[in-house]
Amino acid sequence: MPHKHDELVLLPLGGAGEIGMNFNAYGFGHGDEKKWIVVDCGVLFGREAATPGVDLITPDISFLAERRKDVLGIIATHGHEDHIGAIHLLWPMLKCPVYATPFTAKLIQGKLEEAGLRERVKLHIVPLHGKMSLGPFDLELVSITHSILEPNAVAIKTPLGTVVHTGDWKIDAHPQVGEATDINRFQALGDEGVLAMVCDSTNALVEGHSGSEADVRKALTALIGTLKGRIAVTAFASNVARVDTVAKAAKIHGRHLVLVGRAMHKIVQAAKDTGYLSDMPPLMDFEDAEDLPPHKVLYLCTGSQGEMRAALTRIASGDHFVKLGPGDTVIFSSRIIPGNELGIYELHNKLSRLGVDVLSADDHFVHVSGHPARGELAEMYRWVRPQIAVPVHGEIRHMHAHAGLARSLQVPQAVVIENGQMLRLAPGKAQIIDETPSGRIHLDGRVLVAEGLGLSRTRRSLAFAGLIAITVIIDEKGRVAADPSIFLEGIPEPVHEAVREAVDAALERHNPKKSDEKKLAEAVRRAARSAADNAWGKKPITRVEVVVI
Amino acid sequence: MPHKHDELVLLPLGGAGEIGMNFNAYGFGHGDEKKWIVVDCGVLFGREAATPGVDLITPDISFLAERRKDVLGIIATHGHEDHIGAIHLLWPMLKCPVYATPFTAKLIQGKLEEAGLRERVKLHIVPLHGKMSLGPFDLELVSITHSILEPNAVAIKTPLGTVVHTGDWKIDAHPQVGEATDINRFQALGDEGVLAMVCDSTNALVEGHSGSEADVRKALTALIGTLKGRIAVTAFASNVARVDTVAKAAKIHGRHLVLVGRAMHKIVQAAKDTGYLSDMPPLMDFEDAEDLPPHKVLYLCTGSQGEMRAALTRIASGDHFVKLGPGDTVIFSSRIIPGNELGIYELHNKLSRLGVDVLSADDHFVHVSGHPARGELAEMYRWVRPQIAVPVHGEIRHMHAHAGLARSLQVPQAVVIENGQMLRLAPGKAQIIDETPSGRIHLDGRVLVAEGLGLSRTRRSLAFAGLIAITVIIDEKGRVAADPSIFLEGIPEPVHEAVREAVDAALERHNPKKSDEKKLAEAVRRAARSAADNAWGKKPITRVEVVVI
Repeated sequence: MPHKHDELVLLPLGGAGEIGMNFNAYGFGHGDEKKWIVVDCGVLFGREAATPGVDLITPDISFLAERRKDVLGIIATHGHEDHIGAIHLLWPMLKCPVYATPFTAKLIQGKLEEAGLRERVKLHIVPLHGKMSLGPFDLELVSITHSILEPNAVAIKTPLGTVVHTGDWKIDAHPQVGEATDINRFQALGDEGVLAMVCDSTNALVEGHSGSEADVRKALTALIGTLKGRIAVTAFASNVARVDTVAKAAKIHGRHLVLVGRAMHKIVQAAKDTGYLSDMPPLMDFEDAEDLPPHKVLYLCTGSQGEMRAALTRIASGDHFVKLGPGDTVIFSSRIIPGNELGIYELHNKLSRLGVDVLSADDHFVHVSGHPARGELAEMYRWVRPQIAVPVHGEIRHMHAHAGLARSLQVPQAVVIENGQMLRLAPGKAQIIDETPSGRIHLDGRVLVAEGLGLSRTRRSLAFAGLIAITVIIDEKGRVAADPSIFLEGIPEPVHEAVREAVDAALERHNPKKSDEKKLAEAVRRAARSAADNAWGKKPITRVEVVVI
Repeated sequence: MPHKHDELVLLPLGGAGEIGMNFNAYGFGHGDEKKWIVVDCGVLFGREAATPGVDLITPDISFLAERRKDVLGIIATHGHEDHIGAIHLLWPMLKCPVYATPFTAKLIQGKLEEAGLRERVKLHIVPLHGKMSLGPFDLELVSITHSILEPNAVAIKTPLGTVVHTGDWKIDAHPQVGEATDINRFQALGDEGVLAMVCDSTNALVEGHSGSEADVRKALTALIGTLKGRIAVTAFASNVARVDTVAKAAKIHGRHLVLVGRAMHKIVQAAKDTGYLSDMPPLMDFEDAEDLPPHKVLYLCTGSQGEMRAALTRIASGDHFVKLGPGDTVIFSSRIIPGNELGIYELHNKLSRLGVDVLSADDHFVHVSGHPARGELAEMYRWVRPQIAVPVHGEIRHMHAHAGLARSLQVPQAVVIENGQMLRLAPGKAQIIDETPSGRIHLDGRVLVAEGLGLSRTRRSLAFAGLIAITVIIDEKGRVAADPSIFLEGIPEPVHEAVREAVDAALERHNPKKSDEKKLAEAVRRAARSAADNAWGKKPITRVEVVVI
């Protein structure tokens, strides 16, 4: 039943400010009576410098969790970690059904099983081009191309207009595996009239077009034909077309394909289970490949980002059954995710030290991006012709560049919003109507911790200057009753003595008649901290406890 | 007096394995009677992830420090931090004279003054093209081009042959400020016969040529002419030619030049003091520039690498007198030093959020490298024609690529060595004859700490999983005499209770008749650590002390 105060809103809780942890909520209804759907629920990976000890980062979805009875479902556009990786972590706060196409659903299912949630989550498999209705939202999947199987845009029809949520995409007429972009459907949606397009900004600073997987296939196959020794190709496991390319290149050049790394096997299995890669040449185990002559083997490995425990890193460290050496070649058929440069170069260095030749997208045409460059964005805007452009899936610099491009293409309104900002798309001109609590949640070990609690900040302080922890023991009359216990951790040896002396001096100055426990603790804390500062130039976190015996 | 067992050796202690902390020792003589000279003495910058809390990293030079009476001098090829930045830190271990050309000496002098060493260090100013003799070494500076004033190669003549140590270089026929590469001298050295060339590997993976500063000047000047609002250019302060380019572009386009950032002022002053930049347009203070119309001002700022405390970072954070906003433009006239990507992009994001346009070498021709690409390396090898090529100033991957290139140019021998490997250059075929102690020293606060002591590793562990520090108080009979003092730092709240309970349980299990202090401490440590592991999946560093009262 439509209501005169109904409104359609977009609330990104992740991805509007970073490339990662995509999470977009759409609300429809009036006031606090809105019904919600969630498009994508992904993670961001922790980084040692900024978030030490944090494996995964998810959006803080407490705003939606408080309204979980009105959350009708999570729709996953495709199976990348930054789109599905938080489902098993955040689902317990939402407890809503999950919708995905077969290949994506297969990947989600694996994660739910590992998390022990498989039985509890209603996971609906939607066919390609499928439609479904969730409350006031009529949804339709539109096939698109990206660097994974079964990427989808979602057309979200509401009584107040249609939103095209692109998900991650590029335009590739020859994606090699899976469907091409359904250009006709995007154009038809444009003809029907689109209120807003919520769109991938990743490469909004890149001129031109991303290029086709077909061209990578041609170049990579030719390159492999020029090489003599063992070859290891490393690529994102989820790029099934690339896996297929490498498999067929191996066959063409008479090499046996050996998959190395758990993720490679998992993705290939998921693809096969859902009807893809049926003509893939047979695989060989790496144990069986050991005795092959070097020119008869082609390894396809995980580890293109220099990940510590991935196959290629272990091979490069001599810590794997697979061995490479002089005459062998590793091809990085991938890009460098920003922030991973030093780890990847360290991997190149280790391989170079073994005498292995390293080839990459820097010097050979062995990779294309899965995201739309400016030329492709322009094409999409010409097809869909939205009234409002909302850049998402980008850092601020990408979203601003994207908005500028949209304006230059005569989109009437382009709005840059950040996580937590609620944008009313209709009725009226698009505008931010609320700032909801937003932030990040860290998966720290097995515990979810709100970033705002400052645990990462504390650990960065520990990394910077270590810790002094002092226990002072006094008797009932307040007199020092034993030598203090002093822990100094992460602090250079020459500083220790200075701190110990300062603590001793502070205890000697202690007068039980004039000073209580609290004052004593504070005096000791200050003495220790400033002794460290004087000796070292740094102030460690300093904790003091006074125990009365 | 030549000796029949004399040999000429190269011992790199830094830079052969990383781009940074260049330190090359050349030894001549027999056995342990060798005399040594040091070419360059630089630092590497610490990184939060790998070396938290470490500002600077230097080579471990204990091998030379033990022979300091035989160390005849340090020759600085040019004034970049990775070539001179460790002089004030390591000089006290060597106490030898330092040699540099006027501009470089000016920079070294500033550092020695700050370190309180100005009076103690003999700093000899050598003219461009200067010659000097240090024991068995006859040295000659050969002018070359790079991204700083007064870069020099050093021709090192010994009774066993001549080594050309290139320092950092490129070939730029129009360097804008300072001398061009002295091609004739390199060719003449080649004609006289060169035993070994020890050469910059930074860009040995880059095809072609680095490009000329003259072309940057043309493009940057034109670009500045197209912009309307305030302009801030950020560049490496030490690139005096770039500073000059920006100053002249400002003048051409009727803008007042404002230097922002201490390093900018320091370098400009050093250049003026040594006779450069005499025709530089007058500078304006940023306070005076506040009232100028936007199109009349051009800021030249430090901070191109996103350094936390540099001018541009503070401007972008709204934490500086200089303000930028919509309509203004920042030009990054610099490259991204690997590892700085995320910090620089974060700076771009902050500027974008202010509405500032960000232009960089990604989209405009506003920077050229100061290091030789493969085309330039090939030219240099054709001039010098050494018998032995020794790549330095590179990671393993660069040095291997460099050695491969040298071999392809028919250099008879190309040898890749790493820090601490002593390479005999003559007599006979070049070969590694010793592995000396090598490693890194961290400047941690004000204290120098050997990397091998593991302090960084400890602090990384603290950053990963925090610390538990427990003091158990027992009486003389070994009975628990008070509640334990338990510090939990960097550990999520839900884990604290589990640890406290485990410690209490361990103390309850304690039997003074069966267990001594050491066993008690170990029992408590294990209980706490495994409680954390069970509750959290991580094992913090855990320290226990038992105090007897």
